[in-house]
Amino acid sequence: MSTLDEALALVRGTVRSMTAYVPGLQPSPGQRLVKLNTNENPYPPSARVLEALRSAIDGSLRLYPSPDAAALRGLAASRYGLSAQQIMCGNGSDEILALIMRAFVDEGDTVAFFQPSYSLYPVLATMSRARTVSVPLPRVRHEEEIQRLPVPSLRAKIFFLTTPNSPYGYAFPPEWTDKLLGSFRGIVVADEAYVDFADHSSLPLLARNPRLLIVRSMSKSSSLAGMRVGFAFGHEDVIAQIMKVKDSYNVSRLAQVAAYASLEDEQYAKETRNRIVATRERLTECLRGLGLTVMPSRANFVFAATVDGSSARPLYESLLSRGFLVRHFASDGLSDGLRISVGTDEQTDALFDSIRGETHGG
Amino acid sequence: MSTLDEALALVRGTVRSMTAYVPGLQPSPGQRLVKLNTNENPYPPSARVLEALRSAIDGSLRLYPSPDAAALRGLAASRYGLSAQQIMCGNGSDEILALIMRAFVDEGDTVAFFQPSYSLYPVLATMSRARTVSVPLPRVRHEEEIQRLPVPSLRAKIFFLTTPNSPYGYAFPPEWTDKLLGSFRGIVVADEAYVDFADHSSLPLLARNPRLLIVRSMSKSSSLAGMRVGFAFGHEDVIAQIMKVKDSYNVSRLAQVAAYASLEDEQYAKETRNRIVATRERLTECLRGLGLTVMPSRANFVFAATVDGSSARPLYESLLSRGFLVRHFASDGLSDGLRISVGTDEQTDALFDSIRGETHGG
Repeated sequence: MSTLDEALALVRGTVRSMTAYVPGLQPSPGQRLVKLNTNENPYPPSARVLEALRSAIDGSLRLYPSPDAAALRGLAASRYGLSAQQIMCGNGSDEILALIMRAFVDEGDTVAFFQPSYSLYPVLATMSRARTVSVPLPRVRHEEEIQRLPVPSLRAKIFFLTTPNSPYGYAFPPEWTDKLLGSFRGIVVADEAYVDFADHSSLPLLARNPRLLIVRSMSKSSSLAGMRVGFAFGHEDVIAQIMKVKDSYNVSRLAQVAAYASLEDEQYAKETRNRIVATRERLTECLRGLGLTVMPSRANFVFAATVDGSSARPLYESLLSRGFLVRHFASDGLSDGLRISVGTDEQTDALFDSIRGETHGG
Repeated sequence: MSTLDEALALVRGTVRSMTAYVPGLQPSPGQRLVKLNTNENPYPPSARVLEALRSAIDGSLRLYPSPDAAALRGLAASRYGLSAQQIMCGNGSDEILALIMRAFVDEGDTVAFFQPSYSLYPVLATMSRARTVSVPLPRVRHEEEIQRLPVPSLRAKIFFLTTPNSPYGYAFPPEWTDKLLGSFRGIVVADEAYVDFADHSSLPLLARNPRLLIVRSMSKSSSLAGMRVGFAFGHEDVIAQIMKVKDSYNVSRLAQVAAYASLEDEQYAKETRNRIVATRERLTECLRGLGLTVMPSRANFVFAATVDGSSARPLYESLLSRGFLVRHFASDGLSDGLRISVGTDEQTDALFDSIRGETHGG
């Protein structure tokens, strides 16, 4: 016999008192919403991915997967001009981020990031009982301003650099990241979940910088959010240390198959990417035309804010009532804006009509 | 510019000096080995699982999965007589074990387990900088002895109880686990990865014991090692705390689909289980007939040891040369035995022939 109080008292204090990361709403299939809230790709995965998955569905699912996703690592290596040992695969890039914390951060260490950026970082830091330093990230009007943003001056074990940033959408040029690596002495994690929609990656910096880790996701540009595949790229000796702390079989057989086939179909990835980038530019222009302030985005979403800083909640609610689910962050100085994922052209046109109706009192 | 030494110096000392858990060998598809080393199921998943997976392969893979695997939790709840809130799903039971550590264990806390049991526990403890207490587990000849094994007297945050034990194969009766819960004041994690091959689970103890957590896997009895699905069962308030520390989308869409369909097909699970149990009993008898000491197993493997305590390595090597891959643990006082997964009847017959040839100098 034991009481519930006894059981709960055994939970770490830091966990009892923490609030979990809250992911964007996943509406039930019955709700007919245009889902523009969690930056999923509006286009399906490559037909070759679906084909490869279908062929992989057989009795071999009874067997454990390759612990290090050997074939996938090999293909990713040739695709990105790295060695297989410079790459590790994870159960989504969220797992990769958690493993990086587990490899580098002891209780009492410091973890730094821009505010706003991915709100999972402080949650991971709390779980490791790390201190956090959040550096205010300014909004920019023009891309030229980004290069001139001061490099944060601080000491920490890790600096998580979301680039392109979420929710703001703008990307840090590799020259800026190089400056950061020069002045900051910890590990720079370039969280490049959205980089395939941008023009530049931090990848060229890797050869000279063992303190740089690059995190990638197949959830956005590869349309595989449902499969859970992420990567870390780094120096092979650093990757080897992170591999030590992962679960033995962290990426399922089918996830490995899907990711492999997706990397093989470069043509489809390129076409999809180009369509989304074109729609993003149109979305940006139209939202500006409707009187909203929109930052230059290199991701598959835009951040659109009210000109006078008033709350964007009414617009969020109005769009929801018209069948469009976008993301409104109530706190962290973000309440004046909406993060809107880039949908298909049809979805984007319909969204314009709804916003136009709203902002013009329709 | 940064040097590799600078980067490696940033890795936690505890990670730099640790040895990762080494999973059983996954031979490449080219090697034609009968794989009896990691306790996979020799039979394929249910045809309904393969069918459900095929139907789920479509454009919806672009969307994130249900964060809490809602439908799967619901079905598992009705299957096990629990509420959905008493269940959480993980990326294999290895992830569940890691999350339990993350929820309960602070640096300096103590984690306890039997030795031998699942060698992942001390690896997880090291990563959390926890102390470990390993309690020697005796070998038994008859099941009646298990009930009389003394309940360990110790203080720790968690006691990991692998039941059925691996590599020994014998199971602790619920009455014994109940005694453990009475004297030990921490969290008892009944790691029931193999319980579907046994006659009793700790499940009936759950209602009265908020300090009990039960961990299950779909890798063994459900033939889904390649899909990565595990569960934790516990008091709903305790489960809610562990849910806080998981990645948002830790179980992929297809893993949720496969697990759901597998739970639906109870008939197939029962048939497969019965075949494996029958083969296990035959395997046990035959190995004993060949002069090996075999403990009473309630899992899908047996532990067979030499009578004189001499190394089982030569037998391991000989079986490998004849195309059978079994598990030999070189250290931890286990070097006199082999852990042999229960294969099909045909595989088992062929294995007998090979061992007979070896032990009779053939």
